[in-house]
Amino acid sequence: MPGNTFGTAFRVTTFGESHGKAVGVIIDGATPKVELREKDIQHELDRRKPGQSSVTTPRKETDTVHIMSGVFEGRTTGTPILLILYNEDMRPEAYDDIKKLFRPGHADFTYLAKYGIRDHRGSGRASGRETAARVAAGAVARKMLAARGVKITAYTLRAAGVGCNSIDFKEIEKNPMRAPDAVAAAEMVKRIIALAETGNSAGGIVECVIEGVKPGIGDPVFEKLDAEIARAVMSIGAVKGIEIGSGFAAADMHGDEHNDWRDGSGFLSNNAGGIIGGISTGQKIVFRAAVKPTSSISLPQKTTDTDGNEAEIVTEGRHDPCICPRIVPVVEAMAAIVLEDQYKRQSALHG
Amino acid sequence: MPGNTFGTAFRVTTFGESHGKAVGVIIDGATPKVELREKDIQHELDRRKPGQSSVTTPRKETDTVHIMSGVFEGRTTGTPILLILYNEDMRPEAYDDIKKLFRPGHADFTYLAKYGIRDHRGSGRASGRETAARVAAGAVARKMLAARGVKITAYTLRAAGVGCNSIDFKEIEKNPMRAPDAVAAAEMVKRIIALAETGNSAGGIVECVIEGVKPGIGDPVFEKLDAEIARAVMSIGAVKGIEIGSGFAAADMHGDEHNDWRDGSGFLSNNAGGIIGGISTGQKIVFRAAVKPTSSISLPQKTTDTDGNEAEIVTEGRHDPCICPRIVPVVEAMAAIVLEDQYKRQSALHG
Amino acid sequence: MPGNTFGTAFRVTTFGESHGKAVGVIIDGATPKVELREKDIQHELDRRKPGQSSVTTPRKETDTVHIMSGVFEGRTTGTPILLILYNEDMRPEAYDDIKKLFRPGHADFTYLAKYGIRDHRGSGRASGRETAARVAAGAVARKMLAARGVKITAYTLRAAGVGCNSIDFKEIEKNPMRAPDAVAAAEMVKRIIALAETGNSAGGIVECVIEGVKPGIGDPVFEKLDAEIARAVMSIGAVKGIEIGSGFAAADMHGDEHNDWRDGSGFLSNNAGGIIGGISTGQKIVFRAAVKPTSSISLPQKTTDTDGNEAEIVTEGRHDPCICPRIVPVVEAMAAIVLEDQYKRQSALHG
Amino acid sequence: MPGNTFGTAFRVTTFGESHGKAVGVIIDGATPKVELREKDIQHELDRRKPGQSSVTTPRKETDTVHIMSGVFEGRTTGTPILLILYNEDMRPEAYDDIKKLFRPGHADFTYLAKYGIRDHRGSGRASGRETAARVAAGAVARKMLAARGVKITAYTLRAAGVGCNSIDFKEIEKNPMRAPDAVAAAEMVKRIIALAETGNSAGGIVECVIEGVKPGIGDPVFEKLDAEIARAVMSIGAVKGIEIGSGFAAADMHGDEHNDWRDGSGFLSNNAGGIIGGISTGQKIVFRAAVKPTSSISLPQKTTDTDGNEAEIVTEGRHDPCICPRIVPVVEAMAAIVLEDQYKRQSALHG
Repeated sequence: MPGNTFGTAFRVTTFGESHGKAVGVIIDGATPKVELREKDIQHELDRRKPGQSSVTTPRKETDTVHIMSGVFEGRTTGTPILLILYNEDMRPEAYDDIKKLFRPGHADFTYLAKYGIRDHRGSGRASGRETAARVAAGAVARKMLAARGVKITAYTLRAAGVGCNSIDFKEIEKNPMRAPDAVAAAEMVKRIIALAETGNSAGGIVECVIEGVKPGIGDPVFEKLDAEIARAVMSIGAVKGIEIGSGFAAADMHGDEHNDWRDGSGFLSNNAGGIIGGISTGQKIVFRAAVKPTSSISLPQKTTDTDGNEAEIVTEGRHDPCICPRIVPVVEAMAAIVLEDQYKRQSALHG
Repeated sequence: MPGNTFGTAFRVTTFGESHGKAVGVIIDGATPKVELREKDIQHELDRRKPGQSSVTTPRKETDTVHIMSGVFEGRTTGTPILLILYNEDMRPEAYDDIKKLFRPGHADFTYLAKYGIRDHRGSGRASGRETAARVAAGAVARKMLAARGVKITAYTLRAAGVGCNSIDFKEIEKNPMRAPDAVAAAEMVKRIIALAETGNSAGGIVECVIEGVKPGIGDPVFEKLDAEIARAVMSIGAVKGIEIGSGFAAADMHGDEHNDWRDGSGFLSNNAGGIIGGISTGQKIVFRAAVKPTSSISLPQKTTDTDGNEAEIVTEGRHDPCICPRIVPVVEAMAAIVLEDQYKRQSALHG
Repeated sequence: MPGNTFGTAFRVTTFGESHGKAVGVIIDGATPKVELREKDIQHELDRRKPGQSSVTTPRKETDTVHIMSGVFEGRTTGTPILLILYNEDMRPEAYDDIKKLFRPGHADFTYLAKYGIRDHRGSGRASGRETAARVAAGAVARKMLAARGVKITAYTLRAAGVGCNSIDFKEIEKNPMRAPDAVAAAEMVKRIIALAETGNSAGGIVECVIEGVKPGIGDPVFEKLDAEIARAVMSIGAVKGIEIGSGFAAADMHGDEHNDWRDGSGFLSNNAGGIIGGISTGQKIVFRAAVKPTSSISLPQKTTDTDGNEAEIVTEGRHDPCICPRIVPVVEAMAAIVLEDQYKRQSALHG
Repeated sequence: MPGNTFGTAFRVTTFGESHGKAVGVIIDGATPKVELREKDIQHELDRRKPGQSSVTTPRKETDTVHIMSGVFEGRTTGTPILLILYNEDMRPEAYDDIKKLFRPGHADFTYLAKYGIRDHRGSGRASGRETAARVAAGAVARKMLAARGVKITAYTLRAAGVGCNSIDFKEIEKNPMRAPDAVAAAEMVKRIIALAETGNSAGGIVECVIEGVKPGIGDPVFEKLDAEIARAVMSIGAVKGIEIGSGFAAADMHGDEHNDWRDGSGFLSNNAGGIIGGISTGQKIVFRAAVKPTSSISLPQKTTDTDGNEAEIVTEGRHDPCICPRIVPVVEAMAAIVLEDQYKRQSALHG
């Protein structure tokens, strides 16, 4: 019932605070006998870690993963896999000044409302740092999905008001925005650096394409594949919206435009985004997430403290002026966890 | 693990096919000693039922609810409540012609891919009729939420390319679109009837406003209040996207615009949509769902049959040219189920 | 979180009160395309129903099952199966006298303590009648297990102080005790009728043997196969104890006696009861349940009423002087539900 | 769906292998703002750790617990608590000889059957070492239960054929058997040492008494308080049976003997063991677990290897000749986890 677990057949539970001792995840239900090395996971963590470029936070965390259980002689045993990342660059004292202040856009106020106590150091549990655990778990899911022929690719489709005009997967890892359009990426970076210099931040849109999912994956009614993806992606802190296939554009379409016809070669269009009735069609699954501008900015803002007094806050510290490039691997990880879970559930249904 | 259950502390499990004997729901976890009469539920079902107006399907279902268990002398006992709606206007033979055809936009193909068998009569389990069970369960959740001071109001914000220019809750139930703007509603109806006459259909956007939720409701990390709402709403068949607060508009905003400041009177804006870090702020919760145009249209369409042969299909039968007005109570119901569940979970955490 | 659901991959949720409108069950996760007719289920229900013999209650319930969903043209579709049994021989007024009295051995006091309200009619939800829903669900599980080669046989091993001296499965359904020893059965019946004539009741032990389970079924750590069986069986109202294999006798054994050795032909003994480390060994699974004497007796007993006043109670009505023969199919049903669930979970793990 | 998690509102997930890097647990759902220090947990771990006396294994593990998350300035925050115990006295090489042998009574054979791979070092995940994680989690549950006035006391009631003749809680921690009867304890120790000298082992019975549980705790139907206790206790490796209250003795009792009458002072007896209809009565909860003799013995035994060849095995190494004294804190821990979970669930129901 508490919300730190995702998935049923492939189940991950994350733990840890931003400036506590560690963050990490238990993965329960991993297929046995799958080769798994720390470097498989580290590769994905390195894509999410801070300090990669001028558009990300300079916090120094190597995010080194340790496999603590569930792997024997380089292969999964089917028992719980604990992955732990010890925190290194902790500066809890950097947050002393804002101990009693509610930072705008942050979960300070709501955590206190819910729990009656909060670890104020770097957002504690509400920190984006928690997503490192998701990426680690997603890397394990991806090992299994790779064997199924499933490939997941996310990228920044739009940021700081700049959209991509072309989609070339080979470009994604070549620019700091993880955008599939080199020209657009350069313009995004330029605008974001300008914003950062004024102490401001930018939002964007991350798109994800999943290839190779066979038809029949996903479990109606409430755990439809798109519903699970929506939950998974919306559970990432900065995400304010999610759409599948035609998405919000469907609102202004007519039935004859929107329906995906079929002929002998299969579906002729993909407004459905690869999912109908909550079940995969075998086409590419395509969805987009709206990412809000980073809440931590250096401009002075109005707020209140925990006693209800009005105050002005200027958030110092190390922030991402646009979180999109670092959300890309998180979106991929969540998609991977959803899919590995649903594949296993399909096996259970017929097993 | 199978996906017909939603919620943990307040848990609903739906059953039934469109042209089978019945549809309905078991509600487990209802607060004991709450007054509950069939008419409380019937009122909501009547808002969803077919045949209400010129913009909805003429299928005749009274959708009469029967409380079969869990209620004693007009009050809940805390044991499972079975609500059943016997199907009446079943015409399974009307679907014989399309028994072997995959209807575009429908889950025919994917259900067969998943299960290896399908009840082809009126979409079987994938029918919108399943949402009657959700509305019935939502009505029970609303009884409890009413006692908490929570009020949920959804409406058609946009349909057939026509958007509302004003929001007046009192207008909603006065027009067949369930739109909060009488003028816009009239234009929507006009366009939808025109589309229906050509055998076509329209999409739209449904917005939902939840008032009275106290701060602190929602459970990070994976079961954030907005993530649960996203899942709940995306699990409604026709929904292609969901956004909270600023939603997709956040992508083009800057941090100083998006952050909701506070002063002594509370929050000064609501880009968050009433939820930060997955937990309610105490403000109005606001979200929007993108609704695709109804897949059942009378225009000839290309498809294939279950043997892979190409075919043309013209869907006869009784359809909604725009499903928005009937999705409104479903969205409210799903929001109610999420909230009642989360309220109870908050009690468990501190209990 | 509420407790009316059992299982994860094969999941059953029961509903209904003894003297309400109906009892029944939703089964979610049934394998698709399995032949299922009402008569398959009815056969098992007839073994549990009241009025079968002199040692069971004369309440008249045909326990006729209706498949309301999830089955199409005689085969499961993989969607939820609602099984409903409408109550017939309801006599709620028979319970008016004891409306405010706590019957000894019954859950009257505890239900009121938990819920603050109770349906006093024939124990309401706490009635043994709830087990009809379990038997119905178990019958569905058994269809699938039969295809796996799994056979489940329970019987009365001991009752009213009389134990069986031989185990002959062919005898079980030939005597009203469902005992595998005809001679012992006759003596049990004699003693129970004598007890019933004095208004008293008897307890006993039900043993269950499961054949054909392949090695490797069961999920450590907390959901070991024996732990799940223990939960399933202990959740039957009258059961006060459960033991697997050597059971309580193990307490006085030494390691060299208890360990089951192996040679080329497999295990040489079965003190483990067919389960080691929570996982099936491939041997017969053997467990026993202790059944308390029926709480409803006609002898005068001391109790209190809901206002705390002392009172004497004489329970009139229709009761089973020994519940063992009717618990036999319930034990089999619960074992079937556990096993079908665990088989599916094993498929998920490797799937 | 994988079985390494227990509980719903108060949820624990354990991880780790006997000779891997660490064992531990994530606790999700802990009440916020509860004081929690490592020493609170260490105290319970010290009761379970090896090397305490002549009747327990000499393996040297300090079982030092580290709180890695979920606690801030000495108080729980309501977020997941990771407790980790790094393994110290690992001797994986000690198991090389038996790498390919199935040890009688151990889960070697069944783990391989289930997973197709096994960590053979000291039983891997199937080791009793996993219970250290349970004890750690139970210690956290006990902090919360203490505030509710709930007290849990387990002890060795019988071992090596010697039963206690008196129950004095003050004696329990004074003797190595954790028996409540000093005289019986001395005799148990004598017999167990004699058995150990011949390379053999002994079983026993552990009883648990829970005081202070208010009436109304426990959730029918499938998650009855006694059913959950049965599952929790049966999930401990060496347990072969569990009985509540009268237990197996109920089989030979009559209704008038077994029913617990009430007068103005409350219940007059406690055959129910403090639970009726799955719900606490407010009386003491009493249950007993049958513990098998330790499987690891030094006597030569017949077995087979992973290739099916017959073999003789003599298990060297460090073993407990009777596990009862070390199971005592594990039983208490599992009871604590069940109760804290059920208290929270009761809050959810009415919350």
